[in-house]
Amino acid sequence: MIAKRLIEWGSSGSTIREIAAYGEARAAQIGAENVFNFTIGSPSVDPPPCVYESVERLMRTLPPTQLHAYAPAPGYESVRQKMAEHLNRSFGAAYRSQDIYMTDGASSALAILTHALLGPGEEALTLTPYFTEYKLYVEAAGGTLREVPSDPETFQIDLGAVERALSPKTALMILNSPNNPSGVVLSRESLTALGRLLEERSRIYGHPIYVIADEPYRELVYGDVEVPFLPLIYRDTIYCYSFSKSLSIPGERVGFLALPPTLTDYENVHAAVYGAGRALGYICVSPLFQLVAAECLGKTADLSVYEKNRNLLYGALQGMGYQCVRPDGAFYLFIRAMEQDAKAFCRRAMEMDLLMVPGDDFGCPGYARIAYCVTTEQIQRSLPVFEKLARSYR
Amino acid sequence: MIAKRLIEWGSSGSTIREIAAYGEARAAQIGAENVFNFTIGSPSVDPPPCVYESVERLMRTLPPTQLHAYAPAPGYESVRQKMAEHLNRSFGAAYRSQDIYMTDGASSALAILTHALLGPGEEALTLTPYFTEYKLYVEAAGGTLREVPSDPETFQIDLGAVERALSPKTALMILNSPNNPSGVVLSRESLTALGRLLEERSRIYGHPIYVIADEPYRELVYGDVEVPFLPLIYRDTIYCYSFSKSLSIPGERVGFLALPPTLTDYENVHAAVYGAGRALGYICVSPLFQLVAAECLGKTADLSVYEKNRNLLYGALQGMGYQCVRPDGAFYLFIRAMEQDAKAFCRRAMEMDLLMVPGDDFGCPGYARIAYCVTTEQIQRSLPVFEKLARSYR
Repeated sequence: MIAKRLIEWGSSGSTIREIAAYGEARAAQIGAENVFNFTIGSPSVDPPPCVYESVERLMRTLPPTQLHAYAPAPGYESVRQKMAEHLNRSFGAAYRSQDIYMTDGASSALAILTHALLGPGEEALTLTPYFTEYKLYVEAAGGTLREVPSDPETFQIDLGAVERALSPKTALMILNSPNNPSGVVLSRESLTALGRLLEERSRIYGHPIYVIADEPYRELVYGDVEVPFLPLIYRDTIYCYSFSKSLSIPGERVGFLALPPTLTDYENVHAAVYGAGRALGYICVSPLFQLVAAECLGKTADLSVYEKNRNLLYGALQGMGYQCVRPDGAFYLFIRAMEQDAKAFCRRAMEMDLLMVPGDDFGCPGYARIAYCVTTEQIQRSLPVFEKLARSYR
Repeated sequence: MIAKRLIEWGSSGSTIREIAAYGEARAAQIGAENVFNFTIGSPSVDPPPCVYESVERLMRTLPPTQLHAYAPAPGYESVRQKMAEHLNRSFGAAYRSQDIYMTDGASSALAILTHALLGPGEEALTLTPYFTEYKLYVEAAGGTLREVPSDPETFQIDLGAVERALSPKTALMILNSPNNPSGVVLSRESLTALGRLLEERSRIYGHPIYVIADEPYRELVYGDVEVPFLPLIYRDTIYCYSFSKSLSIPGERVGFLALPPTLTDYENVHAAVYGAGRALGYICVSPLFQLVAAECLGKTADLSVYEKNRNLLYGALQGMGYQCVRPDGAFYLFIRAMEQDAKAFCRRAMEMDLLMVPGDDFGCPGYARIAYCVTTEQIQRSLPVFEKLARSYR
């Protein structure tokens, strides 16, 4: 008996990949330079030199049976130690190597954590808009994802909405800042208020409400913007990180999760993470790339093009009458569709070879996501098409 | 509410890793050359030159944002095409690129397939002895693993035992040949008889019984031994392969599963595999290493040392009075413990710094697994210790 849900998840695929595939087919017809594909959030800048240098040095110096051998399930001790030290140095935290569990990017950390932390019938909250796959991770773990609308003016936390969504069934909340797809960075003020609310409710319900801080875009912020380190604001926060965006190596799948030593019920959560990792088929993170990530800690690809792109595109779209919350991070703009149905809006854009993803996919109908991790030149050349699209609605 | 099962799976870890960790600690005390560690099934020979050549060439010729970018979830079309062609050429099969789904080694293929194919309350059968993690994959998917004893004289299929274990609840059977931990290769004769039985029962029950053929050790066979290609014997077989052992790159996690075009309910299984992959947090296999695997198809590391080790160790142990079914493949010997309790037997060996894994971990008490993927020299020097252990029981 094949689960209907899995068939649905498998055959719908993600709208993002479908539109991207259309874009590729179209590019073959009319030339890639004539298709303005803003669908895929894949880094467009080269990894920093340290990535190549590390790969080259490791392959030259380590015995190959060691370099490509099974690594311990939670990662090499030396790598975990370095991750912990980096967090402690950067944020004043107090992680130990045993608190770090290396993962295949943030996605596997999220799948492992939802399985570890959610019992049947329990709920996970997340703010809209949110990364599509959260729903799958939560439901595959037997839980229910409850979407909590953000403040529609700012995409910051609407504390009243969180308050109304919380219940004794709430076991988990997933936060993503800088946010995919809105680019918004959650403010210290709103996180502090949220932390107080969750502490109070944990006390009332008599069980912890864990927070997963999903932060693969942490380094992609522009201007003088703080990305508060949530584990120091709310005690029961599990931090998830991926090197996909900061080092431009999304395909190689390297990241980690960090359990704070003071986490409620630490021993059981720790064991359940290990158990979930085994049960979901994860054996280890690539030994080569976990060593590379450890050697490149604190370094990033040249991220300046993303800021340049954001400024160019955000400014131009505003001038054309598009509405959009100013994104302080990640590489996404989340614009209001110019008609009620964002899918129809994106279809009309698609007929102009301008490809965006409707917000419906992010639990936020009425919007469209533009992934501006492309060349600045593509953005420049797309502006007349954005203008044409806007004009068609006037 | 943290699932008790996950806590158990996480805190028990695997006995294998525990004993291996003891071995490492002991090696630090008395010197690695004085600890005879036969616990871990990790390749001891270098990858073939094509692995390095491919890594080097790919890193030199492909733009890095492409080489380390997100690959499509099921793998690159070109890679899947090559995998299909290789199977077709090697075995006379008829796979198409869309039948291949690249996975993080065989473990993730197994986790994905158990989730895709097992409904709540359904059963998966496997023959004892079997790879420990099968139980986790099956139970995490909501099913029950039913252990079917093999013929104790040969570790071949005991058809009567399978017959007795089958029921309308049987949705799946997992086979592993060459077998971890016994090293036994299932014969064409026994697989043909099994195929007939499963066909008959599928008809009677009115639903397919899928077989997963887990074959990461396919190339590690010694002498004139056939490893029959099960998908051509039994129609509803899904083939799982890993490059971990053949290319000596277990840490890099590259493998695939192959759905035969004639599989019962193909479309739904295909979609459920994609859905399960998404839901378990898998994004893609390393683009670098899936390209490397495709370039190295048909090549293997120099596996001759394993045959040499098997001959040396199997011969010597027989001479000392150990009982063991002659293993034709993989790199394991599965000996009878010299007392009823294999854990006590392994503890006594451990006190002599000889490390093996008790068969209890493989659903087969009374035996111990020796992983002979070590240097031939280690085997030679361990023989007096094996002799001492045997003598202690005389």
